[in-house]
Amino acid sequence: MDMHDLTRELKQSNNSKIVMLVADGLGGLPLEAGGKTELETAATPNLDALARRGVSGLSIPVKPGITPGSGPGHLGLFGYDPLQYVIGRGALEATGIGFELGPNDVAARGNYCTLDAAGKISDRRAGRPTSEESAPIAVKLRAIKIPGVEIFVEPVKEHRFVVVFRAPGLGGSVRDTDPQAVGVAPLAPVGDDATSKKTAEIAAEFIKQAGAILKSEPKINGLTLRGFAARPALPTYEEVYGLRAAAVAVYPMYKGLARLVGMKITGQAQTLTEQVAVLKQHWNDFDFFFLHFKYTDSTGEDGNFPGKVKRIEEFDAAIPDIVALGPTVLIVTGDHSTPSYLKSHSWHPVPTLLVSDCCRPDGCTGFSESQALRGGLGQFEAKYLMPLALSNAGRMGKYGA
Amino acid sequence: MDMHDLTRELKQSNNSKIVMLVADGLGGLPLEAGGKTELETAATPNLDALARRGVSGLSIPVKPGITPGSGPGHLGLFGYDPLQYVIGRGALEATGIGFELGPNDVAARGNYCTLDAAGKISDRRAGRPTSEESAPIAVKLRAIKIPGVEIFVEPVKEHRFVVVFRAPGLGGSVRDTDPQAVGVAPLAPVGDDATSKKTAEIAAEFIKQAGAILKSEPKINGLTLRGFAARPALPTYEEVYGLRAAAVAVYPMYKGLARLVGMKITGQAQTLTEQVAVLKQHWNDFDFFFLHFKYTDSTGEDGNFPGKVKRIEEFDAAIPDIVALGPTVLIVTGDHSTPSYLKSHSWHPVPTLLVSDCCRPDGCTGFSESQALRGGLGQFEAKYLMPLALSNAGRMGKYGA
Repeated sequence: MDMHDLTRELKQSNNSKIVMLVADGLGGLPLEAGGKTELETAATPNLDALARRGVSGLSIPVKPGITPGSGPGHLGLFGYDPLQYVIGRGALEATGIGFELGPNDVAARGNYCTLDAAGKISDRRAGRPTSEESAPIAVKLRAIKIPGVEIFVEPVKEHRFVVVFRAPGLGGSVRDTDPQAVGVAPLAPVGDDATSKKTAEIAAEFIKQAGAILKSEPKINGLTLRGFAARPALPTYEEVYGLRAAAVAVYPMYKGLARLVGMKITGQAQTLTEQVAVLKQHWNDFDFFFLHFKYTDSTGEDGNFPGKVKRIEEFDAAIPDIVALGPTVLIVTGDHSTPSYLKSHSWHPVPTLLVSDCCRPDGCTGFSESQALRGGLGQFEAKYLMPLALSNAGRMGKYGA
Repeated sequence: MDMHDLTRELKQSNNSKIVMLVADGLGGLPLEAGGKTELETAATPNLDALARRGVSGLSIPVKPGITPGSGPGHLGLFGYDPLQYVIGRGALEATGIGFELGPNDVAARGNYCTLDAAGKISDRRAGRPTSEESAPIAVKLRAIKIPGVEIFVEPVKEHRFVVVFRAPGLGGSVRDTDPQAVGVAPLAPVGDDATSKKTAEIAAEFIKQAGAILKSEPKINGLTLRGFAARPALPTYEEVYGLRAAAVAVYPMYKGLARLVGMKITGQAQTLTEQVAVLKQHWNDFDFFFLHFKYTDSTGEDGNFPGKVKRIEEFDAAIPDIVALGPTVLIVTGDHSTPSYLKSHSWHPVPTLLVSDCCRPDGCTGFSESQALRGGLGQFEAKYLMPLALSNAGRMGKYGA
């Protein structure tokens, strides 16, 4: 029995509102021995006040020692076991550029490459074109026609693009055509089962027609495809939690991840202030709100410690307006840590707090990694956050009599 | 998906060095209410300094409340789920006396017994012979010949020995011949499947020939066999972690356990000082070093509290020379607790610390059970220590994009 079997069985309805604020990459590290993390350095009076009212803890995104990407990081927060539910690379790439994958879609990541006269790869990244150089190529490839198949070609950055094949009954188990080497020809796509063989045939035809279209291009005259993946089959928030859920995000990746679990994308906010306004505007229409704040991650990735501190303070400043809406349960967390010190996602547990009128306070006097370590939620796997949210919202009955 | 599926997929190579120091049976208990444990009593300035730099926690060897033997205790530390990977009793006994089990081997634990004139067991331990009395019997049994089978008979202590049958296609599912009672004859070996039936036939022939050899012995004139087991199929450190691993141990059991996961046994150290010298000597040849210190366990087993304190201080004194080697990740832990108070292994979580330049410090000011309880690693299953080590060493990529 997994957690969703429990929530499906025990979920109950009421008028409560749950808000999950995700500061991407929130957790951090000190820059030097005895120092403070970004969150500990930031002045966060509003988050500290929430920590005093609520219960804190450290969220382990996947398992101890495992660094998650954005996909598994968010699936965990949404209550979907990130080791059970896997979003294939192609599907995540499509999601990341805002492509809405449908149930009949198989997506793949594409790389443009340069082929020599013998058809062998001489440059696996086609001389690293700029996004401006490569974007028109994707448009040219849209001329490819295969009967019975809808084809979408979308530019990504530089030498990368996404292709989506849409037709009933396409399997996603198709092997990469990228041989990961120069001096050899791209591999033919190979399907591992009957439905994936069909996808492989379509991909082969796509590659053939692309070759004809690109043959006179000086650098970008070939392509390889990797990470074939169907849209992952995730049960919806409505089904597993009984929640009408809304996502308030700025970046396509997070909108896409939310969409995969059945959240409705609301508003077109470009700033945190606008996101809070969207939240307010849709307050009566949903039971659950996921609000994503990107910049705690991007500053961490840049190794910009003071920048991350500043973004945390910006995030803190938005708290009062959210609290003013009167959520039944308010959660503040991150999908993983992104310490400026490492300039990357990391495995370190993520400071997390939950405020409701029935959480058990824990004596924490502020919101930080070191306070959360002594918090009442302890160290817990992120996938347990949703059951905690539901219970704190009075939305889950008891298990067994 | 288990942790090894993840580490296999995510592992990456670099020049880092990981050192895992295992003080066997490290965790303890106070002798009286309000007292200190052995580790808390010992003066451990060097471990305390590491705890201030690093992150501490309590390792749960198997699951809460489960007391492990040396086999499961070490498998957990090595990252092999001790409930998934089981080392059969016979295989562990063979390993413990330094016998190198091969892929065609089935090992069993033997007990000498005394049989009466009717062939019934009158003493299950043959009058408890000394090791000096019983050792020559094992040598006599080496005269047993069975076509197509290599047979190894090795003395253990007192009434015990090990027998190993080596031939292709031998199964390990053979039932014990020890009836666990006197006044009845030993049971015939019974194999539970085709390959194990073959082993059972060989065992029956071995018992028959042994009976002929021992019939004129006054006390040791029979034997029973228990715990038949093939060499466990454990993936290697190289395969699951990409690590060239070395074991620096004094006792055969720990060398054997390390060998089962593909570690190379280095040096012939007899003391901790010699072990550290071996570590230094082989520093450039391996990525991972397992150093085993036995005496924290054996003093605990003896109920010798001050003896265990002294051994912990001896262990602490070796730390500076190990730190001087500059390991990227240094771990100090134990395979289980062995409180002097209990004179045995126990289920209590084991104080553990991990030092790297990217661990998140936790305010611990020393290394002890009570400090570790407030440490940043929390209470965690031992099997997560290796993923943490790999990540802290920069040897693991992120999961999902």
